[in-house]
Amino acid sequence: MKEIKVNALSPYSVIVTSTNSQLNFWLEHKKLNRLFVITDDNVDLLYGDYFNSIKSKIIGKYVLKAGEESKKIETVLDIYRCLLKHNIDRKCTILAFGGGVVGDITGFVASTFKRGTNLVYIPTTLIAQTDSSVGGKNGFNLDGIKNVIGTFYQPSLVYVDVNLLKTLDADNFKNGMAEVIKYGFVLDDNLFRYIEQNKRAILEREIDKLKYIVAECIKLKAAVVEKDELDLGGRHILNFGHTIGHALETISNFKIMHGEAVALGMVYESYIALKRNLIDQDLLERLIKILKYFDLQTTADIENYNDFKQAILKDKKNVDSLLKIVLPVGLGRAIITTDVKVDTIIQNMKELSRR
Amino acid sequence: MKEIKVNALSPYSVIVTSTNSQLNFWLEHKKLNRLFVITDDNVDLLYGDYFNSIKSKIIGKYVLKAGEESKKIETVLDIYRCLLKHNIDRKCTILAFGGGVVGDITGFVASTFKRGTNLVYIPTTLIAQTDSSVGGKNGFNLDGIKNVIGTFYQPSLVYVDVNLLKTLDADNFKNGMAEVIKYGFVLDDNLFRYIEQNKRAILEREIDKLKYIVAECIKLKAAVVEKDELDLGGRHILNFGHTIGHALETISNFKIMHGEAVALGMVYESYIALKRNLIDQDLLERLIKILKYFDLQTTADIENYNDFKQAILKDKKNVDSLLKIVLPVGLGRAIITTDVKVDTIIQNMKELSRR
Ligand SMILES: NC(=O)c1ccc[n+]([C@@H]2O[C@H](COP(=O)([O-])OP(=O)(O)OC[C@H]3O[C@@H](n4cnc5c(N)ncnc54)[C@H](O)[C@@H]3O)[C@@H](O)[C@H]2O)c1
Ligand SMILES: NC(=O)c1ccc[n+]([C@@H]2O[C@H](COP(=O)([O-])OP(=O)(O)OC[C@H]3O[C@@H](n4cnc5c(N)ncnc54)[C@H](O)[C@@H]3O)[C@@H](O)[C@H]2O)c1
Ligand SMILES: [Zn+2]
Ligand SMILES: [Zn+2]
Repeated sequence: MKEIKVNALSPYSVIVTSTNSQLNFWLEHKKLNRLFVITDDNVDLLYGDYFNSIKSKIIGKYVLKAGEESKKIETVLDIYRCLLKHNIDRKCTILAFGGGVVGDITGFVASTFKRGTNLVYIPTTLIAQTDSSVGGKNGFNLDGIKNVIGTFYQPSLVYVDVNLLKTLDADNFKNGMAEVIKYGFVLDDNLFRYIEQNKRAILEREIDKLKYIVAECIKLKAAVVEKDELDLGGRHILNFGHTIGHALETISNFKIMHGEAVALGMVYESYIALKRNLIDQDLLERLIKILKYFDLQTTADIENYNDFKQAILKDKKNVDSLLKIVLPVGLGRAIITTDVKVDTIIQNMKELSRR
Repeated sequence: MKEIKVNALSPYSVIVTSTNSQLNFWLEHKKLNRLFVITDDNVDLLYGDYFNSIKSKIIGKYVLKAGEESKKIETVLDIYRCLLKHNIDRKCTILAFGGGVVGDITGFVASTFKRGTNLVYIPTTLIAQTDSSVGGKNGFNLDGIKNVIGTFYQPSLVYVDVNLLKTLDADNFKNGMAEVIKYGFVLDDNLFRYIEQNKRAILEREIDKLKYIVAECIKLKAAVVEKDELDLGGRHILNFGHTIGHALETISNFKIMHGEAVALGMVYESYIALKRNLIDQDLLERLIKILKYFDLQTTADIENYNDFKQAILKDKKNVDSLLKIVLPVGLGRAIITTDVKVDTIIQNMKELSRR
């Protein structure tokens, strides 16, 4: 078991473990005694008995339909009404048990119901454990615009049980691995080498290996987030692969998964870095090799670069129409720059595709 | 002009003035250059030209239907969509221009749209200037439950122009005066005496008098709120008159105005204090006299004390079913207690009504 402290405005702990048996201890420790669980139907089916040993603390449960489709205001309102029916007050704790969708919806509900209840998060996907578990962001989609409504709200406790990852399907696992590789590639050369050296054991989801990579990612994200709780700029380093990745996601109409898009984005953005002599050919090859090992695509067939251009220029992160891009500079380090023109990006992407 | 600093987690200034001519200075000072205005149709009709001199800063306006009815999720969603149409981003400022309804809805929108935009508040009613302008609370009603959804979110600037109060109708003015008298009675004997001595000029809305009482109330509220930003207990002193008042509001089906109910609540709660020898008869008479002067009722015809009992016991402020009540102890001071039984309250209320 590892305890990672996140020094947000209201500090909290992330527990990384591989069992549910320490949950009761931590809830007692944080004096959280009346819990209302929010989960999705997949997780509920797989882990309906996860809270058996703390049954007396559970005062209700809401099960939403799994999938991004549920991240909408209708779900939020339905949960509010369910909480009202259960007489939930500000002293109760709302517990999110699921992937990023459950986490985002639940975080929003907890931050707005009666102006804020306690929040505990037990993330169950690799994405949720390594990314959404730290940072306090929540939200939902409106009229097809992703995460456009939301707040920053810190949980009282995050309990990460990597054993839950055993049941994750291959797609969702590799989706998370793209982000894990990202952390190593731009923030921590040791983590990147660890992934290279233990790739097989990770792919086979050996508990110790999962625990190590998940804990390292959480530490890295915590360090970045602590410096920029309200996402005013400093967090941008975590957007490596995302400037191009998001645009690819958009033009695919979100048919390619986020992790796939990020993998592609990392390759293209690294190629731009290579062209600027910020990294060498060998490092790009290592990135491509590890992504391929985890069954992530490293080249895309882009039919219409015009659509791509529109999409990348519209990205909400690119405030004041300045394109922000993260470029690696050697292993484990990166810079954020605004001096790469979108036409250069496209030219480099075409070049790499032809190779 | 007075500048009152509120030391919330994110500190901000409340400017108390009697003209709109300093608004531009303060917006420049806070570097707020692109404003989206949210107001209601009454205020818009009366003050459509209020921002004429800063026209170039205004990038859009949303006008909601005046009244408590608008404090609902449908209005919130409609505003989100309007903001999207206007391409509002996190660097824009949303400006609430209206009473508590506009303030509550706008505060919620500003705190959740793209996870938080800047917020400026120009309160236009006496209630909004003296109460909602400080404290960061916002929210809306769901299924008839008041303010059940909301957040705490601090504005960047509150600009209080008491000249706006000139057009307020008599009912809304006295509604606010109930709260003003409350501040004096339990928190500040000087303010209470000032109201007694200047009652006529206040009633006639002399600008200097309004500026004085509004600024004093804001200072008093700021001092209370700074100690309890998340409303975890310390704010309860401001609930004087509200324990009984809320219940009276509820059983009237919100037909009596909030201020009327608070006035009645203050009289009844003071009578309880009198029975306990916490205040003397003379002080109760002074309270009744000043309330009557401002045309506020001081006795109620309660038809069904059973309904009243249900309502008071259901109040969300009474966590864990302990009835919390604020009792004055001399002029300008009060205590919060949980040892008054609801039956004692009712008995005292009946007694006072018979006198
Ligand atoms: N708030 C943040 O900081 C943040 C960060 C990253 C992503 N997100 C959001 O998270 C969402 C994506 O998260 P996600 O990838 O976890 O998606 P998800 O929540 O939709 O989960 C993916 C699928 O895995 C299933 N699942 C979950 N746990 C499982 C388990 N242990 N075993 C088997 N199946 C399981 C789910 O039911 C779902 O079908 C997006 O909406 C994204 O916007 C938020
Ligand atoms: N957030 C807080 O801390 C807080 C505190 C107190 C009250 N509130 C909320 O505020 C609301 C009540 O506020 P309110 O009393 O200001 O009600 P309101 O906003 O409905 O305003 C009352 C009426 O006065 C009109 N009006 C506003 N300004 C005017 C002006 N200058 N001249 C003429 N008419 C004007 C409005 O159009 C409306 O018809 C409630 O919903 C309550 O829950 C919030
Ligand atoms: Zn990502
Ligand atoms: Zn009040």
